[in-house]
Amino acid sequence: MNSAVPWALSHTQVAIEVVATLSFALSGVIEGARKKLDAVGICVVAGLAAFGGGTVRDVLLDRRPIFWMQHAIWVWVLLALCIGAMVFMRARHLEPTERAMQWPDALGLGLFTAGGAQIALDAQMPAIIAVILGMVTAVFGGVLRDIVCNEIPRVFSDHRPYAICAFVGGWTLVGLQGLALPPWLTLLGAAAVATLLRAAALVWDWRLPRWQAGSGP
Amino acid sequence: MNSAVPWALSHTQVAIEVVATLSFALSGVIEGARKKLDAVGICVVAGLAAFGGGTVRDVLLDRRPIFWMQHAIWVWVLLALCIGAMVFMRARHLEPTERAMQWPDALGLGLFTAGGAQIALDAQMPAIIAVILGMVTAVFGGVLRDIVCNEIPRVFSDHRPYAICAFVGGWTLVGLQGLALPPWLTLLGAAAVATLLRAAALVWDWRLPRWQAGSGP
Amino acid sequence: MNSAVPWALSHTQVAIEVVATLSFALSGVIEGARKKLDAVGICVVAGLAAFGGGTVRDVLLDRRPIFWMQHAIWVWVLLALCIGAMVFMRARHLEPTERAMQWPDALGLGLFTAGGAQIALDAQMPAIIAVILGMVTAVFGGVLRDIVCNEIPRVFSDHRPYAICAFVGGWTLVGLQGLALPPWLTLLGAAAVATLLRAAALVWDWRLPRWQAGSGP
Repeated sequence: MNSAVPWALSHTQVAIEVVATLSFALSGVIEGARKKLDAVGICVVAGLAAFGGGTVRDVLLDRRPIFWMQHAIWVWVLLALCIGAMVFMRARHLEPTERAMQWPDALGLGLFTAGGAQIALDAQMPAIIAVILGMVTAVFGGVLRDIVCNEIPRVFSDHRPYAICAFVGGWTLVGLQGLALPPWLTLLGAAAVATLLRAAALVWDWRLPRWQAGSGP
Repeated sequence: MNSAVPWALSHTQVAIEVVATLSFALSGVIEGARKKLDAVGICVVAGLAAFGGGTVRDVLLDRRPIFWMQHAIWVWVLLALCIGAMVFMRARHLEPTERAMQWPDALGLGLFTAGGAQIALDAQMPAIIAVILGMVTAVFGGVLRDIVCNEIPRVFSDHRPYAICAFVGGWTLVGLQGLALPPWLTLLGAAAVATLLRAAALVWDWRLPRWQAGSGP
Repeated sequence: MNSAVPWALSHTQVAIEVVATLSFALSGVIEGARKKLDAVGICVVAGLAAFGGGTVRDVLLDRRPIFWMQHAIWVWVLLALCIGAMVFMRARHLEPTERAMQWPDALGLGLFTAGGAQIALDAQMPAIIAVILGMVTAVFGGVLRDIVCNEIPRVFSDHRPYAICAFVGGWTLVGLQGLALPPWLTLLGAAAVATLLRAAALVWDWRLPRWQAGSGP
């Protein structure tokens, strides 16, 4: 392995975190605005949505400093995003923005999953744990956002495939790992699988099977 | 102290975590099904109920790897339990299952308390902190389950003794520690006290004292 | 720098944590009583309100043992406070107590902010992260209290300046740090700014700007 590969890997991972973080932050702004939080609340919910999943992953893995504490620039970017959204976005923008956000959000889902699972594999975790930590990275930001907004997390209750796409993407990463591909290709492949699966679920309106409550008396 | 004692202690602790974990996971499946979560949500809530308390304890003590990340087999067991429950359990089973679950849950309460408090004592924590971490281990899985399901945690609001049984069990462990008994006996004694106290509370329908709201004007 | 300065700094920091902790604990007792939690629930909510912010800060910074696990005396003080409040406080006391609590709470806000931000600076965090960790220390106890009580955290939704006072106080600490003042003076200066700002917000009933929902169609 030459020295360019860790470099490319490290840059791919940083780029992954940037795109996904901003796309998740905006989901927090929208949810906070809907719940009529004040300016501080909106920033905090955006921060939880953007950084929450990665933070839970880093705490579980005991990885320090936590990424947003190390690259403080992203806290500034988050603040700018929130203030910009609060100044320029009007209430009537919320619903169309949320619909438009589905696509960068699907991208974030794939990228966070692949990045998170890779970090867990690098920390010598077994495959199933890496897959779960990839899911945690992708999904727990939204979970924390919804908990603070006093909702049952949408990802657990809307019966649409979301975390399950991350689950499949995580296993893709584990599988590709075995092929000794260049690390960036492994990452992008896994991210693509999760993202495309989520996009397909959106386009064809897939549903998860319901609990078989109907078969009771 | 001969070398058999740490062996027995370590096996007792592993056995403790297994039985209690499965019994708590099923409480998560039931709560998730009641809230009409989708399949992914049910698995996550079951996972929080089963692993949440121990995870919070390990994070507070800075103990890594966290037990379910080290023994990944238990994640597989959890997944199998959730899928099995979703396939075989019908809505009309929920209430009788929950009533039947009270007894393994009381067992889990005792075992988690004793195991968690012992781990804290091993980490040189003072007695009161060990007792609290035993309670956290036993109780916080259910707390996280209820928070995600958007309920006030039942353990804090149903006015029945639950955490308080863990509290007494924890102090029992601290007291037995002073008697220089074999470690497995100390563990089982403390677990038995907490479990029997909980069972007595269920059988005789004990209530915690209410806040003296009635004495206001 | 002579050896008296670290001594004074360490004592100032301990005193900071004591006063602020008790004042926050009482807010948890009141909120728990309002939600009709049982005795255990009230103690846990008081503990979350008092220790939650500092615990989240310590976990994010990987600082162990967590302060309340190291100084176990404060757990005893918390228990005594909760039991005392439950015995002596009546339902009709809740509202007047809460109004009276605004002032020690403002003090706690300032002290926790300054203490938390200082700890983050000591851990070599960049300025913006130290400010955020100061806010987390001051604010997340109340956030956890409200999440467990199944409310949207008041600090994010009541449109009154609270976290923003911590934000300004945090930046004051960072600014004073540059002046090479004695550490205790830096701490007290930053705490005073946050506390006075909060007090002014209470006295003149300041409001945060609302989301511009009215400008939609």
